This record gives sequence, C-alpha cells and structure tokens, in this order.
Amino acid sequence: MRKKNSTPTMKDVALEAGVALGTVSKVINGLPVGESYRIRVEEAIDKLNYQVNSYAQGLKASKTYTVALLIPNTLNPFFAKLTYQINLSLIKRKYRMMLCTTDFDPGAEQEYIMMAQQNKVDGIIGLTYNPDLQVGDNVPFVSIDRSIGSHIPCIASDHFAGGQMAAEKLADLGCKNVAFLRIGSSLSNEPNKRKAGFENGCLARNLQYHLKILQDGDSIHEFEIFLTEHIHDGKLDFDGLFCVTDYIAYEVMKILKKLNIKVPDDVQVIGFDGIQMFGHSDYICSTIIQPVQDIAEMCVRILLQDNTAAKPPLICLPVSYKYGGTTKESAERQD
Amino acid sequence: MRKKNSTPTMKDVALEAGVALGTVSKVINGLPVGESYRIRVEEAIDKLNYQVNSYAQGLKASKTYTVALLIPNTLNPFFAKLTYQINLSLIKRKYRMMLCTTDFDPGAEQEYIMMAQQNKVDGIIGLTYNPDLQVGDNVPFVSIDRSIGSHIPCIASDHFAGGQMAAEKLADLGCKNVAFLRIGSSLSNEPNKRKAGFENGCLARNLQYHLKILQDGDSIHEFEIFLTEHIHDGKLDFDGLFCVTDYIAYEVMKILKKLNIKVPDDVQVIGFDGIQMFGHSDYICSTIIQPVQDIAEMCVRILLQDNTAAKPPLICLPVSYKYGGTTKESAERQD
Repeated sequence: MRKKNSTPTMKDVALEAGVALGTVSKVINGLPVGESYRIRVEEAIDKLNYQVNSYAQGLKASKTYTVALLIPNTLNPFFAKLTYQINLSLIKRKYRMMLCTTDFDPGAEQEYIMMAQQNKVDGIIGLTYNPDLQVGDNVPFVSIDRSIGSHIPCIASDHFAGGQMAAEKLADLGCKNVAFLRIGSSLSNEPNKRKAGFENGCLARNLQYHLKILQDGDSIHEFEIFLTEHIHDGKLDFDGLFCVTDYIAYEVMKILKKLNIKVPDDVQVIGFDGIQMFGHSDYICSTIIQPVQDIAEMCVRILLQDNTAAKPPLICLPVSYKYGGTTKESAERQD
Repeated sequence: MRKKNSTPTMKDVALEAGVALGTVSKVINGLPVGESYRIRVEEAIDKLNYQVNSYAQGLKASKTYTVALLIPNTLNPFFAKLTYQINLSLIKRKYRMMLCTTDFDPGAEQEYIMMAQQNKVDGIIGLTYNPDLQVGDNVPFVSIDRSIGSHIPCIASDHFAGGQMAAEKLADLGCKNVAFLRIGSSLSNEPNKRKAGFENGCLARNLQYHLKILQDGDSIHEFEIFLTEHIHDGKLDFDGLFCVTDYIAYEVMKILKKLNIKVPDDVQVIGFDGIQMFGHSDYICSTIIQPVQDIAEMCVRILLQDNTAAKPPLICLPVSYKYGGTTKESAERQD
C-alpha cells in the first residue's frame, strides 16, 4: 500500500510518463495531444493511481464533473428509482451527483438552483413543482415531467399514451364502464396528460367512463365516498378503474376490500408508474410502467451534450403495460 | 429581479455592509468578528442575495461543505430512507451531499473513498460491505452498521436489542415454538447481532426456537422447503416467526399463503426495519423499527464534530416495536 501523504502529483505523472507537465495537463483536460503521448500519460496515471483534484481542475477548466439532481425526496419509490438510475448514468460518464431533496418546497427548489449555478456544477436535472421557477441559461438544465421554458429540455414518459393504453387495455379485457381516479397538483405538467390520454382511449373504444379528480391535499376518503355512491345492490357500477398512480391504486384497493368488491373479479384495476415491492419484487398492481432507466439516461445525455441548438424542448419516452395481478388475464399472457 | 450576469461579489457585500473586505471574508469563513459586524455582513448577504462560491472557498479554506454518502442503492426502501434522512441532516447544516451508489461492489466502494478523499470532501458516510476496505485518516469517515476500524466511528441500530425484542414480543403474544429466518452476508456486521439477540430473548423466556440461516445468493425457496418440513397434519410446528428483514417477512408470508398457513391466526410474524408502503403508508408487517432519522442525525453530527478524540467507536441507537397486522393484538394496543 502507498504510504500515507505520498499522494502522487501531476509532476509525478509527467516524470513517470517521460513527458512535459503541460502534456499531462492537456490529457487530463481532454485537450488534443498526440495519441502516443495520451497513452503514455494514461498509463502513468493508472500506474501511480493518480487522482485528479476535481475542485482545482474545476476552477481551472470551468468544469466540476458534478451534476445536481433536484428531486422532492427519495422516500417515494418512483423518485428513489429515478435517483438511482440517474446516479448510474452519471457514474458511467465519470460524473458525480449532488443530491438536493426539495420536499416539494418551491423556495428550496429555487435556492438549490441558485446554489448549483453559483457552485458551477456542470448541469442540473430537476423534477420540480415551483410554478415560478427561475432558471438562468448559464448552466445547462434538464427538467423531468414539466416544461419550464422553451430553452429547457423536458424529458418525460409518454403520459398521454400511457393513459390511452390503460383505457384500451381495460377495453381489451372486457370492461364496459370504467372510471379514472386521480389526486394531483393543479400545476400544468406532463403527468396530467394521463387523463386526456385515458379519455381519448375511452372515446376511441366506446367505453363509458367517469372521472373523479381530487386536488393535492384532498383526502383519499373522497374516493371511498365516490365508489360507495356507485354501488347498487352490492355491485359496483364500474368494471374497470384506472388509478393515476400505483399508490392511488393501492389505497383504492384497500377501500374496495372494505366495500367487499373483489379485484379483479368484480372490478379490474390498472395503476401507473410500475412500482415494485422493495424496489425489485412484486408489482403493486397491473400497471403502466414508466421507463425510468431510459428517462435517466436521456436526461444525462441531453444535459451533457455540447450542441445546445440540437436539444429538443420535449422528449416523451414510450411506456409499457405490465400485468400485476389486478386485471383478468390468462396465464400465458402473464410474462 | 436581478439582471443576468450581475451576480453580487464579496466586494458588493462589503460596500453594502460598510465594512472592510476582510471582515466579510471572516464572517463567511466562520472566523471571529464583532457581533455587530457579523450582523451587518449577514444582512448585506441576505439583501444582495450573495452566494458563496463554495469551490473557490473550498480551496482557500480547505472546506468544501460537501459530504459523500456511500450506499449500495436507493431502490431498497431502507437505503432510500437513510439517504433521504442523511440528506436532510446535511441540508440543515448547509452541507451538500455527493451521492455515491455502489451496488454492493467492493471495488466501487474503495474507488469512491479514494475519489472522495482526493476531492477533499469534508467527510464520508458509508454503508459498505468490502471486508478489506482501506480508509485513510485524512478525511473524517463514519460507518453505518459495520465496524471498519477503531479510528472510525460506527453508527447502527441496536440490532441485538431488536432481536431480543422480537423474541420477547412473540413470547408476550403467547408463542411457544418460534423460528428465526435469515438471509444475509457472512460479513461480520452489526445487523448480524439480530440473531444473537433473538436467541438470548428466547432463552430468557424459555421459548423453544429453530434457526434457518441462508447465505446471500441462496434462494428464498429454501425457506419454503424448511417450512414445509415443519408442517405436520396441515399445521405448522411454529406459532411465531422472526424474519431478519421486512423483505424476508414479505416473501415468507407469500410462502405461508401458498402453504395455506394463516397469518397471524396460525403463525405470528415479526420483521425488522420498519419499511412502509410507498415510504409513508402501511407497514409491511409487525416489525422492529430502525430509528433511521436518529441514525442519520448521529452520523452527520459525529462526522462533522471537530473533537476527534471524543468520537466513540460504536454507537447503538434504540429500536422500537410496531404492530403491522401480522401479530395477534387487541385493538387498544395498536397505536
């Protein structure tokens, strides 16, 4: 083992490689040098286990190889998975992640952005809710699920297609009378398109449908009232429910159990997100899966690409349907 | 709104506060100045919305106000909660978190530590598995759940007490013949003490017990074989099971359902961790809760405290029992 305090310097690397100090510096900063020089320097770096001091390098090269992620929390399994996948996509490119949990606080979101810009991170990826968020254009920013401005690319699942897919799936499975259950913010964002997509799918397939839309802060108990009002002779009017998230599906299924309505025999339930127990075990319900890995990879790719002009304002990535035990399906369809 | 590119400088703050530049610098770097000066500078900082450039400051003051967290992933709900709470504890102290997910890779764990040390983070908090992990003493390090060396404080739940609590709780609830089900690494760490605590509790309460210990990589199916072997005349030999994690409890309950053994009527089940659905909803099972918030707060406090000599080698924090539907309890005991 290397002795303590004998950390190799750039000079040691130059000596080992038999090149000038400036050549080492160029290799480290990704500037052009002759291929044979680059190889010699990289071999010396490996041999000495030389580690670039990224802070010093950051000040010199105006690069920190650090990206800030703004996300409400990592408790919610969807946010937890997104954080994990973005972390992986950054690591792959030798970037580090500064994790900024905002707890949905608009003030915290704005503060983090100012801090991140001042600290000269190379970019920011944000899943934010502040309707008045100010994002300067001195640091690349990619927004997840919400368009912030024309100069900021937004990456999201194709929420509209997901809503439509849920309606069509329920129709395929024999439903005639369905309902959409939603709690969410009134903020205009991509996930809101699930509703429009669902309505579109219902209309296309001649499915009769109801909407029950609650606002953030409303009690989940409102769904119990709604469902109870739609029970006649012990039978629920609906044979299919599309819940805006797997979490809502989970809570709604507890209500259905209480009301003695059986899933999927009496009513089929489809959720949205693709949450798995413990991050890798069973699905909560039959669900529209968000392509979290693809979203993460796309965020990082778009964020770090140099050609700003080529950055599209909105990228919607394809979702997929997954059977999770709350719809009626024959065994061979359950992959 | 402030015009673009007119970011206030330290000079602007000095001018606004009517003090010398050196005074502003002292306040920013936490050096002693007269109280009235400090207040004037802080007011000027607020008024101008001056943001410290922490990278430049970091190089000058040898402080980066950044802590690295090494954790396998944020998919596992326990890791996700730990990440979230450590993040909150750091934010409270105006520190930032560099998130380093290791995916249990010993090489990645070692690499991150070297990177973190080279990048002069102010400290590292690590939940690691590499048995040969080398941690220098040039950067403060706090280890979660595993003693790495006498110079590195280890913070953990009181896993022994938790195991004992599970046994005693099962005894209190009328169990006579119990079993402990575990999958885990052979690595010596704090969570392993759950077993010894459980045995201790069983002996103290004259509870007959079996142990079924699987190694990482073994199939959960082994538990099904074990349980099936202990069914006689359709009845399970055990009336209580302590599962080493809530995840194992979840998987074991699926097996019990398949074997037509009813929880909690035929067998009571207690897990460990305190995982909640979606991070905030129902508990998976009756469980021994790890005090994640206290662990996070203690990690950050110990990591950032200056007095190294006062850092204890091992801190065990109290766990608690929570009813979660898989034990027999009267309604009034279910808080």
